[in-house]
Amino acid sequence: MYRTHTCGELRIENNGQAVTLGGWVQRVRELGGMTFVDLRDRYGITQLVFNMDTDAELCEQANKLGREFVIQATGTVNERSNKNPKMPTGDVEIIVNNLKVLNKAKTPPFTIESDTDGGDDLRMRYRYLDLRRPNVQQNILLRHKAARAAREYLYNNSFLEIETPFLIKSTPEGARDFVVPSRMNEGQFYALPQSPQTFKQLLMVSGYDKYFQIVRCFRDEDLRADRQPEFTQIDCEMSFVEQEDILNMFEGLLRHVVDSILGYDLGKVERMQYDTAMRLYGIDKPDIRFGMTFTELNDVAQNKGFKIFDSAELVVGICAEGCASYTRKQLDELTNWVKRPQIGAKGLVYVKCNEDGSFKSSVDKFYGQDDLKAWAEKAGAKAGDLLLVLSGDTAKVRKQMGELRLEMGKRLGLRKADEFKALWVLDFPLLEWDEDGNRWNPCHHPFTRPKADWETIENWGDIKADAYDLVLNGNEIAGGSIRIHERDLQEKMFELLGMDKEESEHKFGFLMSAFEYGAPPHGGIAFGFDRLCAILGGQESIRDFIAFPKNNSGRDTMLDAPSPIDDEQYEELHIQAVEKVAEV
Amino acid sequence: MYRTHTCGELRIENNGQAVTLGGWVQRVRELGGMTFVDLRDRYGITQLVFNMDTDAELCEQANKLGREFVIQATGTVNERSNKNPKMPTGDVEIIVNNLKVLNKAKTPPFTIESDTDGGDDLRMRYRYLDLRRPNVQQNILLRHKAARAAREYLYNNSFLEIETPFLIKSTPEGARDFVVPSRMNEGQFYALPQSPQTFKQLLMVSGYDKYFQIVRCFRDEDLRADRQPEFTQIDCEMSFVEQEDILNMFEGLLRHVVDSILGYDLGKVERMQYDTAMRLYGIDKPDIRFGMTFTELNDVAQNKGFKIFDSAELVVGICAEGCASYTRKQLDELTNWVKRPQIGAKGLVYVKCNEDGSFKSSVDKFYGQDDLKAWAEKAGAKAGDLLLVLSGDTAKVRKQMGELRLEMGKRLGLRKADEFKALWVLDFPLLEWDEDGNRWNPCHHPFTRPKADWETIENWGDIKADAYDLVLNGNEIAGGSIRIHERDLQEKMFELLGMDKEESEHKFGFLMSAFEYGAPPHGGIAFGFDRLCAILGGQESIRDFIAFPKNNSGRDTMLDAPSPIDDEQYEELHIQAVEKVAEV
Repeated sequence: MYRTHTCGELRIENNGQAVTLGGWVQRVRELGGMTFVDLRDRYGITQLVFNMDTDAELCEQANKLGREFVIQATGTVNERSNKNPKMPTGDVEIIVNNLKVLNKAKTPPFTIESDTDGGDDLRMRYRYLDLRRPNVQQNILLRHKAARAAREYLYNNSFLEIETPFLIKSTPEGARDFVVPSRMNEGQFYALPQSPQTFKQLLMVSGYDKYFQIVRCFRDEDLRADRQPEFTQIDCEMSFVEQEDILNMFEGLLRHVVDSILGYDLGKVERMQYDTAMRLYGIDKPDIRFGMTFTELNDVAQNKGFKIFDSAELVVGICAEGCASYTRKQLDELTNWVKRPQIGAKGLVYVKCNEDGSFKSSVDKFYGQDDLKAWAEKAGAKAGDLLLVLSGDTAKVRKQMGELRLEMGKRLGLRKADEFKALWVLDFPLLEWDEDGNRWNPCHHPFTRPKADWETIENWGDIKADAYDLVLNGNEIAGGSIRIHERDLQEKMFELLGMDKEESEHKFGFLMSAFEYGAPPHGGIAFGFDRLCAILGGQESIRDFIAFPKNNSGRDTMLDAPSPIDDEQYEELHIQAVEKVAEV
Repeated sequence: MYRTHTCGELRIENNGQAVTLGGWVQRVRELGGMTFVDLRDRYGITQLVFNMDTDAELCEQANKLGREFVIQATGTVNERSNKNPKMPTGDVEIIVNNLKVLNKAKTPPFTIESDTDGGDDLRMRYRYLDLRRPNVQQNILLRHKAARAAREYLYNNSFLEIETPFLIKSTPEGARDFVVPSRMNEGQFYALPQSPQTFKQLLMVSGYDKYFQIVRCFRDEDLRADRQPEFTQIDCEMSFVEQEDILNMFEGLLRHVVDSILGYDLGKVERMQYDTAMRLYGIDKPDIRFGMTFTELNDVAQNKGFKIFDSAELVVGICAEGCASYTRKQLDELTNWVKRPQIGAKGLVYVKCNEDGSFKSSVDKFYGQDDLKAWAEKAGAKAGDLLLVLSGDTAKVRKQMGELRLEMGKRLGLRKADEFKALWVLDFPLLEWDEDGNRWNPCHHPFTRPKADWETIENWGDIKADAYDLVLNGNEIAGGSIRIHERDLQEKMFELLGMDKEESEHKFGFLMSAFEYGAPPHGGIAFGFDRLCAILGGQESIRDFIAFPKNNSGRDTMLDAPSPIDDEQYEELHIQAVEKVAEV
């Protein structure tokens, strides 16, 4: 063993003890014949002391140490005269009597500190150095703890962790599969799983009852910011359950993880219908840390001669408390904000509810004080508040207003970093219309159970499913559903989705066959683990919660992957490259 | 919730309680106006009772239930008059008052019992039914428990579970990589990891100190029996450690897992040099549950006129205790056994140590009683024992004798199923000569640290490494090494392996670069988790410890994977199929 203790371990109680430490040189300071070295490992920092008077040669050696050198130091624990209360080891220092450089280090290309001078690209190329920074280390540690806490909870609730295969069958549906050419089966490919969905359902058919797995999944999609081609799920499934059982079990999981990581009591998780969420928040994952819910104003705002509102499907407002004092400049800026292409509103109507009971709006031309008073009353706006109103197509304007609400929440400090609020969103639609593909797609996936009355509903868009999402601070952190467990119903569902018998049999015949041999009612959920960790870590980006992430082009710049393969590999895999057609 | 209790839960204490159970119909018996249904789930079996007298309609319903129907039954717990002490629930039955068929089942293609009538192929195609069989369920449960126990131990020893990427860079070395064409990077491929080796070393460079992961790995090799293209490792790495630290830490892990699963105390794990193992057992993973070690007989058996021995590099014997009574027929059969192509010996020499002190051998023509007595003494053979002797090329004959020893151990009942003996095999050679490739290959992998004196050793085959294997009952269950942590040494190693600078830089430049920025001394180990589970489950084959295994052609016959992909997928991935050249 190269060490007797870690660099975070020694205390005043160890005074006088002979110890050996190993670690990285954080910094070296020479000070009036003394040299102080901060020695770092993942457990902490301990100060080493060298004295020119007592051992000049050793002290010279210490003076030559560079940043990030790996050393082994033996010495005696000594009570510091000048204690550092900010460090757990700050009461002691090590009077070193033996020093060994285990490995030298070149000067790192960026500083190994939370607040580093290294840009994204540089940090990714030297990820092994980036991972030394204290903040990144905290993230990786948080992820470890979150996985441990999740397992703890699931173990204690009789869940079995069962591994499912990574080399499976390609059944592209929505997202693209990553595929793996088979050397032993010419012209055939495995696919990497987008999720273990069908396997966990088969495990229910097999009677395993309560399954989970913390598992890597793969999706070959065009990468938006903060999406990774490989990501991790806490994947769960239960048999003989109804939706209520699932909600209780998995809000318990979230509560346990949040408590373990942050010591924070989530309390009761609220519940909301999908339709309500859309109506009140304009989004299926509302941030309920603050109110500012939508008020629909059609009945009080239409037919007063303002054509834009009159022709709108929806006129909707939010009330920004205490913002009546916004200046012209502030309101213009807000108007420009909603008109940005990312939001896409045509304009923004405001109503200031002045302290004196009067109203001032951007549409005073069309609306009298009584009209505006009716709006304000409907929206619950008090004197001093500001009403912000958008209009247009229902779907679009809800989305825009949802964004504006979040922005206002941020500006008003209502989205508190140290507050966590979870919400179940229930009764999602079964299907959603795909404009591009001119077809109905499953909202969740084709194995989702429609509500019992589904066949009586005329408009397919109105069919609801036993599907639910778990939302934390406005982020979808988990989604799931009760599944179909009957062959008939599953066949009908594939039909609904425009899959002919041959195709559904080819892709999912094994699952439908399994449903014929005694499939129990079942349902489940999957947590996006990367996202969950990022939120618990109080950060927006998942990337720094993944030890070795890909960049936005799906590349690992440290490894320089993906990369070309040998001719021999092509040959063995029975494939060849398609040459680029020169577009000259 | 479809149930108030599981089928393994009810006891006499629940007598009189109203309960609802869900599960699978194991069997239905009609008996004098009563119907008994065994209801099964993964927790156990509970007997349901229906009475024609009390409720004829319900009883009729029960009589119509088929094998593997999924039902929900509500009723009252009742003390059985005819108790079944073999079942934990055998004291009670449920007098059913409500029965609901949740899902019907076709008759399964094989019986859902440990001793099934289904052949391998059928069971694999209907793996979801096979997984219902009690013995397979025990295996899957054992695997779950083993993973849980391993994590428990590693958590308690401050290891961090850190996930490493699956889409990495292809650096084929020895085994072939599975590769994944990149849609976004034309002409480039990811590879699936054969192990997270380089990543865990980078994590040590990053200061994570103690890492583990229970992780899937991939190797595109021609499948021998009982090898899977995807397999699971308990992958571990530690910094600032020497070999001794690793041995102690990970025999502790094994001891904890064995104790958790079997309640068995492994005791101290023995240690043996690789050279000793080869000399005494002819193999690098000796089964030390029994002795029967090799005795080298060259000095007493050569130069007596028996040409076969005289020309042999090695004459080696084992002593089979109490086998002097073997008949001619038995000895012939044994001779034929070693002459089979799988073993490949040219013949077998035996010496019976008769009870009267005389010797009878198959080479009496060349050796007198004194000669044979010398052999027997050297081999520690007593009256009543049987000496079995092989000769030839050292490497070959050791391998043959190793097989014979295991076979004799089996025949003599010395390889006890309920006994577990673990062994560290130490000081493996660094390199092994690859006849086919006409080159030196690493015995372990190119990151393995050679012993300090390696540069003074002339014959490369004699260079030893800080590499170790953990052997359980004659199976290698883990292997590892202290790693190289200096760029210079790593470069030299690649050179030794015939890799030029360009190639080593292209493949492992990131790792060598990492070694320049403060890499600590480190080492690690990886357990073959599938194998470990199989051994702890007392079975030879790993396949039934994997929920969804591949067959020997690397196929999943349930999914029918791998399978052809669409033209569109080919196009998007910038590859095309190579047409088979008709060999007409």
